[in-house]
Amino acid sequence: MNTPPALLADRFKTLRYDETEQAVIVLDRRKYPFQTEYVTLPTLEAVAQAIEDMTVQGGPPLAYVAGLGLALAARDLPGDMAQAAACLEQAAQRLLVTRPTADDLKAVVPAALERALAALHQGGDPHQAALTYVNGEIRRGNEVSRLCGQHAARLVSDGDRILTHCIAGAALCWMLWTAKQQGKTVTLIGCETRPYFQGARLTAASAREMDIEFKLITDGMSAHLMSVGQIDKFICAADRVTLDGHITNKIGTLTHAIAAHHFGKPFYVLGYDGPDPATETGADIPIEERSPDEIFYARGETGTVRTAIHGIGGYYPAFDITPPHLISAIVTDRGIFAPHAVREYFNAPVA
Amino acid sequence: MNTPPALLADRFKTLRYDETEQAVIVLDRRKYPFQTEYVTLPTLEAVAQAIEDMTVQGGPPLAYVAGLGLALAARDLPGDMAQAAACLEQAAQRLLVTRPTADDLKAVVPAALERALAALHQGGDPHQAALTYVNGEIRRGNEVSRLCGQHAARLVSDGDRILTHCIAGAALCWMLWTAKQQGKTVTLIGCETRPYFQGARLTAASAREMDIEFKLITDGMSAHLMSVGQIDKFICAADRVTLDGHITNKIGTLTHAIAAHHFGKPFYVLGYDGPDPATETGADIPIEERSPDEIFYARGETGTVRTAIHGIGGYYPAFDITPPHLISAIVTDRGIFAPHAVREYFNAPVA
Repeated sequence: MNTPPALLADRFKTLRYDETEQAVIVLDRRKYPFQTEYVTLPTLEAVAQAIEDMTVQGGPPLAYVAGLGLALAARDLPGDMAQAAACLEQAAQRLLVTRPTADDLKAVVPAALERALAALHQGGDPHQAALTYVNGEIRRGNEVSRLCGQHAARLVSDGDRILTHCIAGAALCWMLWTAKQQGKTVTLIGCETRPYFQGARLTAASAREMDIEFKLITDGMSAHLMSVGQIDKFICAADRVTLDGHITNKIGTLTHAIAAHHFGKPFYVLGYDGPDPATETGADIPIEERSPDEIFYARGETGTVRTAIHGIGGYYPAFDITPPHLISAIVTDRGIFAPHAVREYFNAPVA
Repeated sequence: MNTPPALLADRFKTLRYDETEQAVIVLDRRKYPFQTEYVTLPTLEAVAQAIEDMTVQGGPPLAYVAGLGLALAARDLPGDMAQAAACLEQAAQRLLVTRPTADDLKAVVPAALERALAALHQGGDPHQAALTYVNGEIRRGNEVSRLCGQHAARLVSDGDRILTHCIAGAALCWMLWTAKQQGKTVTLIGCETRPYFQGARLTAASAREMDIEFKLITDGMSAHLMSVGQIDKFICAADRVTLDGHITNKIGTLTHAIAAHHFGKPFYVLGYDGPDPATETGADIPIEERSPDEIFYARGETGTVRTAIHGIGGYYPAFDITPPHLISAIVTDRGIFAPHAVREYFNAPVA
């Protein structure tokens, strides 16, 4: 089966390290697909800021970009080994504080650091060691997405009208594409996902690229559509899955999950490579609070307009946490798990 | 007690018939408060289109403007009485088809028509008869808002963080102002309310004018805020209340109502002058579906940007229906009612 014809289905198409440029190059996800613009990040600080300002978004993509940032920092180290190690440690620290909620960053950056330090101490090339590791992770992530999406396709029925929120990434592409290859016709109902409109842009673009019917709604419409029988199931991704089956995802997910539970509609989570072994429960997930300024504006095809009046306050938690009793199943690269028993992931055979 | 210092607290400040101009003059609610712009509507058709394109919004305001439109149409009638009556009937028909969901339009326009026809047949002035009636309704509506808001203030506690959706109008202003006069400090947490951002503009402006703390959130954040204990109650208006206690209001209301029920937070509806005697239950309310084009854009301070990609579909139901078991109380000008027993409104003493 070929890779789904959607740009976001293959991470190598949206982020990479360029040896000639000696820089990390990423698709600007704040603008895509209005503009398909790649940004060149020549320094560690540029990489960190691109993660903070959401030029690159999504748990795995931003983690890979951070890993590539560490490889970048490992290029020109001081000759003194202790100083070089300190530089690498500092680079990792800078990258780790960019965004707190998704777990991928916390897995990729320390592992890339470990590879670079090991190379440093063994007289190898720290840059190449980190880069080789991160590129391997991107390949593994693509494969995880494929397997997760293919498992999820079993939960999709012909004629389904599937609600989604924000951008569920490569696994969603694989799920939709696999279902389509199986002869299932689905409609994707995408929430626009304020404030960044990822649904109206990124998810909508992926659906359009794969010729899947897409209907846009605003973030407050899901309950109404369920109440009139126009949504069959809710499927989104997770930025982190906990050992006891909580998930965190883009703010708004909990609202849809509660509505789905109220109306008896299944809610499936694309959990990629399973729970974070270091996070026991939802209360252990730090929820990122971003500047309220970001919800006072709307960024569109031709620019940005202020949509809120001046002289007011605002509140922008970027994620919310959904408990396991509101989730019907968590789908991973190792199969489909009951949320309360998602720990079984670690006992499941690897494909 | 003085009228709350908010423009939207007194309907005469935002809509009126001007005898000199021979036109209906309305505040452009799509732009306020970015621009405080009054639009002159010199013809029946201009009035009807201003209602359809949401220059004027909200159940009672648009009904009053429609009534004033009928008064306008009653100015220059043909000399022949049968032709004049037919003209008036046609004008009423045109106005009644502008927007289907709120009940106020269906009360005000036929009553204004009846007054104009009676004057016509009795040799009186149909224009003046309709105008007198509608101006009386606006005065009555202001009084209903005051009483409804003052009753609702009893449900507000010092320190409350009150979620609201869209713009709950004059009664919300009265509620907040009354609570403030009673020494209660509240924070209003307003959903921006896509696609027209009424919360980020109109509700925010009313709060700012009355010096009530206002925090803006996007439409998908209410459940999260409830889950972390940052919302104490949910209060909004209704475009129609049914005899069995269903309410319809701006799309998104149902989402918040389900979340409030899930988290055990009260949901109070500002029901103004009570249930519509002609609507038995929720299934009898026609839900307006507007062009999906309207959700593809964001209109802001300095213009409009397209926020959705091209080549996709969309769905824009403008209202949703919340059943009585999700509502804690319906507040009216005659007091506070249990939703399932809101019919008691008709037995309650008039203030």
